[in-house]
Amino acid sequence: MTRRALITGVTGFIGGELARRLIADGWQVHAIVRPQSDTHDLALTGDITLHVVEDGQDLTSLLAATTPDVVFHLASLYLADHRADQIGALIQSNLLFTALLAEAMAATGTRNLINTGTAWQHFRTDGYRPVNLYAATKQAAEDLLLYYVDARDLSLITLRLFDTYGPGDKRRKLIQILIDAARTGEPLDMSPGDQIVDMTHVYDVVSGFVLAADQLMTAEARQARAYILSGERHSVKALAQLVSDALDRPVKARFGERAYRTREVMEPIVPGPDAKLPGWTRTWSLPSYLAAFLA
Amino acid sequence: MTRRALITGVTGFIGGELARRLIADGWQVHAIVRPQSDTHDLALTGDITLHVVEDGQDLTSLLAATTPDVVFHLASLYLADHRADQIGALIQSNLLFTALLAEAMAATGTRNLINTGTAWQHFRTDGYRPVNLYAATKQAAEDLLLYYVDARDLSLITLRLFDTYGPGDKRRKLIQILIDAARTGEPLDMSPGDQIVDMTHVYDVVSGFVLAADQLMTAEARQARAYILSGERHSVKALAQLVSDALDRPVKARFGERAYRTREVMEPIVPGPDAKLPGWTRTWSLPSYLAAFLA
Repeated sequence: MTRRALITGVTGFIGGELARRLIADGWQVHAIVRPQSDTHDLALTGDITLHVVEDGQDLTSLLAATTPDVVFHLASLYLADHRADQIGALIQSNLLFTALLAEAMAATGTRNLINTGTAWQHFRTDGYRPVNLYAATKQAAEDLLLYYVDARDLSLITLRLFDTYGPGDKRRKLIQILIDAARTGEPLDMSPGDQIVDMTHVYDVVSGFVLAADQLMTAEARQARAYILSGERHSVKALAQLVSDALDRPVKARFGERAYRTREVMEPIVPGPDAKLPGWTRTWSLPSYLAAFLA
Repeated sequence: MTRRALITGVTGFIGGELARRLIADGWQVHAIVRPQSDTHDLALTGDITLHVVEDGQDLTSLLAATTPDVVFHLASLYLADHRADQIGALIQSNLLFTALLAEAMAATGTRNLINTGTAWQHFRTDGYRPVNLYAATKQAAEDLLLYYVDARDLSLITLRLFDTYGPGDKRRKLIQILIDAARTGEPLDMSPGDQIVDMTHVYDVVSGFVLAADQLMTAEARQARAYILSGERHSVKALAQLVSDALDRPVKARFGERAYRTREVMEPIVPGPDAKLPGWTRTWSLPSYLAAFLA
C-alpha cells in the first residue's frame, strides 16, 4: 500500500526537503499551497500534487479527496519581531489555517497530524514562555489542536524546532551571511556573539518528521505529544570561526558593533528526556556539512 | 482622580452590568463596540463613551486617546458547539481582537488588563483541557497575552467564569427556560438532569472584576494571574425544583427525553486555593434571587 502524505508549507526550506524525502521513500505526496506561493522549485522536485487553497477556505473536500495517512503541517508565518500591522497575518497563518486544517481532518476521519512548533516557546524555561509573538501563536495553535485531539480524535505530534541549515536554503540565515562575509572579505557588524545557537541539518530534521509519522501510524492509541529537536550548539563567535576554518578565509566579524536582539536567546533550553523524540539521532555535523558544501 | 475604564463586550450581559457598576462607583467608562453592535440598551445605562471599531482595526490611537487605568476585556464569541464555517469568526473575535487590544495597550503604555476566560478550559481536570473549541480559543488567547505580559509589560488577571444569572439577562439560559416552563405549564423535554451547574449572580461576578482591577492598580509588580469564579452548585434537576418552589408552580420537566450534550460537564471542577480570587465572596444566592426576581 502506498502511503499518502499531505504537506503544508511545502514551499519552505524544510517542507520542500520533506517532500523530496517522502517521494524518495515511495510516498504519494500532496501539498497545500496558496495562490501566491512560488512553486517553481517544487516543479523540479518530482511528483507532488499541488492543491491551491485561498486564505480561510474550508479544507474538508480537499481532505476527503486526498485521504492522507499523515498530514505534515509546516506552513507558518515566521516573524522574529512583528509590527502591529502584521498581527492579522500571523493569526491567519498560524492559528486560523491550523484550526481549519484540524477541523477538516476531524470531519473526514483523517487521524494523524505532525505539527511544527518552535523551541522559542521555551524562553529560559522548560515550561511555556514565548520569546516573541510568533512563538506565542505556536503555543496557541497547540492549544487549539488539543481540542481536536481530545474531542475529535486527532492523533498529534508537535516537533518544536531550533535553527536549521542545509543545501538550498534561501533564507538569509546567519550561516550563509558568515559564508558570504568570508568569501567577499567584507567586514561584518555583529552582536557581541556570545549567544549559543542550536542547529540541526535539514536532513536530520526531515528524518525527525518521518520518524514521528511512523510513531503516529503504528501507535495503537491516539497520541498527543510534543518533542524538541535539538542539534549541535555553538556560540555565534565559534560559528564564525568554523566558517573561517572551513573556507580557510577569515570572517572579518566586528563583534559588538550591533546590540543583542531584545529577548536574545543566549542559551537555548536543553530538552528534558521526555521531550526527546524516541529513536531520533543526528547524522550530520556542521563542520562536515561545511566541508562538503564548500568543496 | 477619576479612574478610567475601557470595556470590550459592553453589549453583553456581564459587560453591561460592569459598566453600570463602574459608573456608579465614579469611573469614567469607555467602551469598544462594533458597527453592528446593538447599543440601544446602553443608552439607558448612563454615561458611556462608545468607540466604534471595525474587525481587525488597529486600536493604538483609541488606547492613546482614552488612556484607561484598566481595560476590561469581556468581548467574546461564545459557541457551545461550532460549525466549520464559524471557525473564522471564533478566531477573529477571541484571538485576533485580543491580540490587537494587547498590542495597542503595549504600544501606549496601558498596563492593566482584566481578561475573561471560561472554567470550560478545565474539562474534568485542574490543568488545561478544553470542553469545546470556544474554550480552546480562550486558552490560546491567554497564551498570546502571556507574551504581552512577559515581553511588553502588561499586567494581567484572567477571570474564568462558570454560568451566570441575574436581572435583565436576555440570553436564553436554563434558568429562564425553567421559569418560562413553570409559568406556562408547558412540558419541557430535558436531559437526564444529573449534571451539576455552577452559577454566580452577575452582581457578584461584576464585584470580582472590580476586585481584580483593584488588585492590578495597587500591585507594585506586574501580575500574570488567572482565577476561577465559582458560585453555588445545583444539579439541573435541583434547579428545576428550586424554580418550582419559588413560583409555587411545577416545572413539567421530562428528564431523559433529551440526551446529554457531547462532552457534557457533569461535575464542574473545584478551583484550588491558588485559583480563588483573594477577597472575593458571593453575596447573592439563587433562591433569594428567585424570590426577589419573581416577586
